[in-house]
Amino acid sequence: MTFSRMSILGVGLLGGSIGLAVKSGSKQCHIIGYGHRPESLELAKTKGAIDEIASTPAEAAQGADLVILCTPVGTFGSILQEIAGSLKPGAIVTDVGSTKRTVCDLAGKLLPAGVHFVGSHPMAGSERRGMEAARANLFKQALCITTPTPRTDRQALSAVESFWNQLGMRTTRLSPEDHDRILAEVSHLPHALAAALMSTQDNAAVHVAGKGLLDTTRIAAGDAGLWRDVFLDNADNMRLALTKLRAQLDRFELLLKDPKGEGLKDWLDRAAQRRQSIAPPERPDPNG
Amino acid sequence: MTFSRMSILGVGLLGGSIGLAVKSGSKQCHIIGYGHRPESLELAKTKGAIDEIASTPAEAAQGADLVILCTPVGTFGSILQEIAGSLKPGAIVTDVGSTKRTVCDLAGKLLPAGVHFVGSHPMAGSERRGMEAARANLFKQALCITTPTPRTDRQALSAVESFWNQLGMRTTRLSPEDHDRILAEVSHLPHALAAALMSTQDNAAVHVAGKGLLDTTRIAAGDAGLWRDVFLDNADNMRLALTKLRAQLDRFELLLKDPKGEGLKDWLDRAAQRRQSIAPPERPDPNG
Repeated sequence: MTFSRMSILGVGLLGGSIGLAVKSGSKQCHIIGYGHRPESLELAKTKGAIDEIASTPAEAAQGADLVILCTPVGTFGSILQEIAGSLKPGAIVTDVGSTKRTVCDLAGKLLPAGVHFVGSHPMAGSERRGMEAARANLFKQALCITTPTPRTDRQALSAVESFWNQLGMRTTRLSPEDHDRILAEVSHLPHALAAALMSTQDNAAVHVAGKGLLDTTRIAAGDAGLWRDVFLDNADNMRLALTKLRAQLDRFELLLKDPKGEGLKDWLDRAAQRRQSIAPPERPDPNG
Repeated sequence: MTFSRMSILGVGLLGGSIGLAVKSGSKQCHIIGYGHRPESLELAKTKGAIDEIASTPAEAAQGADLVILCTPVGTFGSILQEIAGSLKPGAIVTDVGSTKRTVCDLAGKLLPAGVHFVGSHPMAGSERRGMEAARANLFKQALCITTPTPRTDRQALSAVESFWNQLGMRTTRLSPEDHDRILAEVSHLPHALAAALMSTQDNAAVHVAGKGLLDTTRIAAGDAGLWRDVFLDNADNMRLALTKLRAQLDRFELLLKDPKGEGLKDWLDRAAQRRQSIAPPERPDPNG
C-alpha cells in the first residue's frame, strides 16, 4: 500500500469494506475512521477495519495521505468544507459516490491548492447496509470508474487507480458527465424501476412472488436515504433515462396488439440476446 | 406416485425436470414423452426423464393416467385438440403454463366428458432453457398454483395437487381470472420490465453493467417465444399492470422535483420495506 495514513469518512458497507480490504493486504497503513454512528465506528475498530476513531471529519483528515469520502453523496459538500482546512499539502481525496459531477465540482471549489481530488465510483455494494455487512472481498473483480477532469493531477489519478487495483478492482475512466449519464441508465434507472415495481405490487401479488420478482426487485431493498441523494443529484439524467424507458414500454404495449406477435418476439429476442451478451445465464444452484 | 402411466408433452426445462423429479422418487411410473425436437427427446430418454418417445401428442396421451402439457401456452389449443380423442376415461390432464384462463377455457371446450382438466402453474424455472437445463430438484420448495373452476373435478384436483407436493412443491389455489391478474403484476410485468430495461441500455452502459443491472434483467434472457405467448394471452392484464407501473414512474419523476427529497425518501423507504417483507436481503457470497 502506497499510503501510510488513510482516512475513511463514513464507516458503512463501503467504508468498512475498504478498511478491511486494505488491512487484509497490509498492516502498514494507519486508518482513521469517522462516522455519525458510534456503534459502527466501534464495530469497525473491533473488526480491524480502522485503527483509530476521530470525532470530526477534520480530525480524521489531518495528516492523511488519502482521504476517502464514504458518506451519502448529499453530504459531500459539507464534509469537503469541514476537511479543507486540515488536509496536508499533497493529500489525495477521493470518494465512493454513485454520482460524480457534483462531487468533482465541489472538490474543485472547496479544496485548497496542492490537495488533489480524484472522483471514484467503485461499483460494489449490495442491498445490505452498514459495517455489519462489510467484508474484505467486496471489491474483488468488480469495476471502479474514476472520473478525471482536465484539472485532475495525473499522479494522483494513478495513485488512486492503483489503490483500487490493490483492492482487487478493475478500473476504467469516464468524464464526470459521461459517468452520470451512463450510470443513470445502467444503475440508477434499474434501482428506480425495482422500487416502482415493488410499489406496483398489491398484497395478493406479494404472496405468490417467485424468483422473477425477487431478482428484479432485490436492489429495491437498498438504503432509501443513500438512493434519494443519488436520484436528486442525477435528476436530469434520470428524466432522460425514464423517457427512454417509457418509449420501450410504449413499444411493448403497441406490440401486444398484434395477435401474431412477431414484432413482440423480435423485441424479446433482442433483449434476451443483449442480456446474454453481458453475462451468460446463471448455472443452476446444485443445492437449489 | 399415484399415476402409473404419465405423458409429458414438451420435454424442455419444465417437462424434462418433471420427468427427472418423478423418476427420482419412484421408478414405477412409466413416462411417455413427446416433443418437436428429436434431440431433446433422446437426451430426455438418456437422462432417464422419460421411458419412451411418442411421435405425436395423441400417441403419447394414449392410455395415460396423467397428461402434462409442457409446451408454450400458445400451442395448448392444438395439442388439446390432438389428444382429445385418445385420452382414456378418467384421465387427468394438467399443464405448466404461466397463464390460466385460456387453457382452462380450451380444456372445457375440447376435452371429452369423463376426462378431467386441472390448471397448474408450477412457479419454477429459470432463464435457462431446454432439457439440457432440466434437473430433478427444480420444483423443490417452490409454489404451484392450481386454478380450479366450478367445473373442476375435486378428486382430480386433489390428485394433481398431491402430484406437485410429491415433487416438493407447496400448492395454493386461485381462480384462473385471479391467477392471470395477479401473475401479470408479480411475474409478467417484471419480465416485460427486464426486457424494456435491456432495450433501454446503450452500448456504453452495457460495458459498465454492475450487479444491479444483472439482477434486474436476469429474467430478460428467457425464451422469447415462450414469453411472447404469455404476454399475448394475458395482454388485457398486462395493460392494467403497465398502467399501475406508469403511475409509479410518474410519481417518482414528480418526487425528483423536490430538492429536499422527503417524499422521495418515503417512497423509496416503503418500497424497501415491501421488498424486505417478501425476502430478507441475501447473505453475501462467502466466495464472492
